Amino acid sequence: MNIRKIVKSVFGGAVGLFLIIQGIGASDFPLFPPLGPLPPVTIPANNPQTEAKVELGKKLYFDPRLSGNNWISCATCHNPALGFADGLPRMLGGPTSKEGGRHSPTVINTAYNEFQFWDGRAATLEEQALGPIQNPNEMFETLDNVVRKLSGIPDYVRAFKEVFGTGITADGIAKAIAAFERTIVCANSPFDRYMQGDEHAMSESAIRGMALFTGKAECIKCHNGPNFTDNRFHNIGVPADGPLKEDLGRYNVTKNDADKGAFKTPTLRNITDTAPYMHNGFFPTLFEVVQFYNGGGGRSENKSSDIHALQLSGQEVGDLIEFMKALTGELVEIKYNAVPLAFPNLPKGF
Amino acid sequence: MNIRKIVKSVFGGAVGLFLIIQGIGASDFPLFPPLGPLPPVTIPANNPQTEAKVELGKKLYFDPRLSGNNWISCATCHNPALGFADGLPRMLGGPTSKEGGRHSPTVINTAYNEFQFWDGRAATLEEQALGPIQNPNEMFETLDNVVRKLSGIPDYVRAFKEVFGTGITADGIAKAIAAFERTIVCANSPFDRYMQGDEHAMSESAIRGMALFTGKAECIKCHNGPNFTDNRFHNIGVPADGPLKEDLGRYNVTKNDADKGAFKTPTLRNITDTAPYMHNGFFPTLFEVVQFYNGGGGRSENKSSDIHALQLSGQEVGDLIEFMKALTGELVEIKYNAVPLAFPNLPKGF
Repeated sequence: MNIRKIVKSVFGGAVGLFLIIQGIGASDFPLFPPLGPLPPVTIPANNPQTEAKVELGKKLYFDPRLSGNNWISCATCHNPALGFADGLPRMLGGPTSKEGGRHSPTVINTAYNEFQFWDGRAATLEEQALGPIQNPNEMFETLDNVVRKLSGIPDYVRAFKEVFGTGITADGIAKAIAAFERTIVCANSPFDRYMQGDEHAMSESAIRGMALFTGKAECIKCHNGPNFTDNRFHNIGVPADGPLKEDLGRYNVTKNDADKGAFKTPTLRNITDTAPYMHNGFFPTLFEVVQFYNGGGGRSENKSSDIHALQLSGQEVGDLIEFMKALTGELVEIKYNAVPLAFPNLPKGF
Repeated sequence: MNIRKIVKSVFGGAVGLFLIIQGIGASDFPLFPPLGPLPPVTIPANNPQTEAKVELGKKLYFDPRLSGNNWISCATCHNPALGFADGLPRMLGGPTSKEGGRHSPTVINTAYNEFQFWDGRAATLEEQALGPIQNPNEMFETLDNVVRKLSGIPDYVRAFKEVFGTGITADGIAKAIAAFERTIVCANSPFDRYMQGDEHAMSESAIRGMALFTGKAECIKCHNGPNFTDNRFHNIGVPADGPLKEDLGRYNVTKNDADKGAFKTPTLRNITDTAPYMHNGFFPTLFEVVQFYNGGGGRSENKSSDIHALQLSGQEVGDLIEFMKALTGELVEIKYNAVPLAFPNLPKGF
């Protein structure tokens, strides 16, 4: 098995090969062979992508009328101008803009997730989409009310008829938003170009960082596969911060003691767009994140045994950050003045 | 003086000619001669438009870090997806998303305003831009804090250096946002195309509505000039609604008794995009607005003597609405994923 095949397998998600890579040693990694870009997004059989559905989903995504005060849209906390997140440590929401317990995760590349939300409580984007709408601390609206409101907007009624052949339904709202979100994937990062053979796409520092990433720094233990995540849950001992004294994370879903304080490994693609970091936004910059790992992570009863001190030098920390910067790719351009009119301008029957 | 010149003069802002138009009689108006589109926006000598400045202004306009909770941007209440307004009767804002006393006015065509805000308390877009940032019920932030926050974001520091040759300043923020807003003007409405000679650009109903607009319905008394506003303040007796028991409007600025309850005449261009209507969003649709005028407006001590019952038939009301719909033109397309990164990703001096 040659090195090209091994590295492709690792980035392709074959976590078991990590030990083989480790055996090769960090010094081999500047020879990293080209690796293709992210694979095409998997489209669920029950929700095929169409242009009209994506356009409808975009309108819904930007429409604050999906919230209880008609003022908060998906885009408020997953803001295209802020990396499809909000730039805050923890999300704000609810009728009084209260701070919640967790950081708004980016929508970028969620199309590749095996689980949605920090604790993985939803499996699909469709299932995810209806969560924040109904969450009393986020958009605090009932699905019945959303359906009723949108049913009064002729442009939406027409679009649902065209896309789903039905009136407005919560199921259709979820499917359309999910279809739009499946277009929010990054492409053509310096890393991708480097792996396709453009040796100058990444700086020398980033190339050194890649070797550290897959070697000494062990990032690839969890941040592996084409989307740089194992889609699993780990407790790395991030300190509590914000209104939640204790956040049990994945445990809330599984009730399995081993999942206490474990959160989903986030993608590292476009990570420079989505500061601050961690499930509670504890670290404002990537520098602090790397230093946290360098020190062996935080204290926590259930901390993963894989997290230990790394003894990276200052230059190595910088190289790792340079590599992470090289993971930032291009996104679809969002054109934004597109929501159906608020009112039909004529009452029914006029 | 032929009819073409007369009508051009009226829409050009020569209010004095209104009586001449009245003398012609409504039946003449289907012969309306072509009239050009809106004139170019006047650019203030102390704030010339440049591409880089407009781009910077757009970033600032969409950046929630201009607010006290880093969550509310200009675009929250002047949302490109909702006609550069918010679709709500009255704006929400402040640290607890409280309802305010007035309706968020659209940014569309504010470049043509002689006064900004419903009560005209600012003369220029530059002066306006800094108001909501500091308003405790809107973005509740100090200018010092905004300058400090933006000064920590290298992309902004670079952009201000390029555009203004300075560091971040409140004056620069105001000028850049104003420059961006001067690009939010509508063009090529059916009305504009009709006035340029395309007889099929407006429906028969809209053409009848135009005659009513300038004749029997007397809309043109206040909604005149190329932007369909006299840029003056009138009390038409809109009922009180929302948290404000009494809103003295322009009087708050002038302390002139005659201005009690008077509000700025809004543009009617793109009016279909900006429901609900009036300074307090009292009317959800244009139908209710026209019926309000048809009944002679509301009760108010200082109501303008020009407001009286119109005796429009049901068809005439419909025709007027059709004409107003024909005033909706195209807007510049907003591409939205453009705000500088939240964090430099490396602490200073690293």
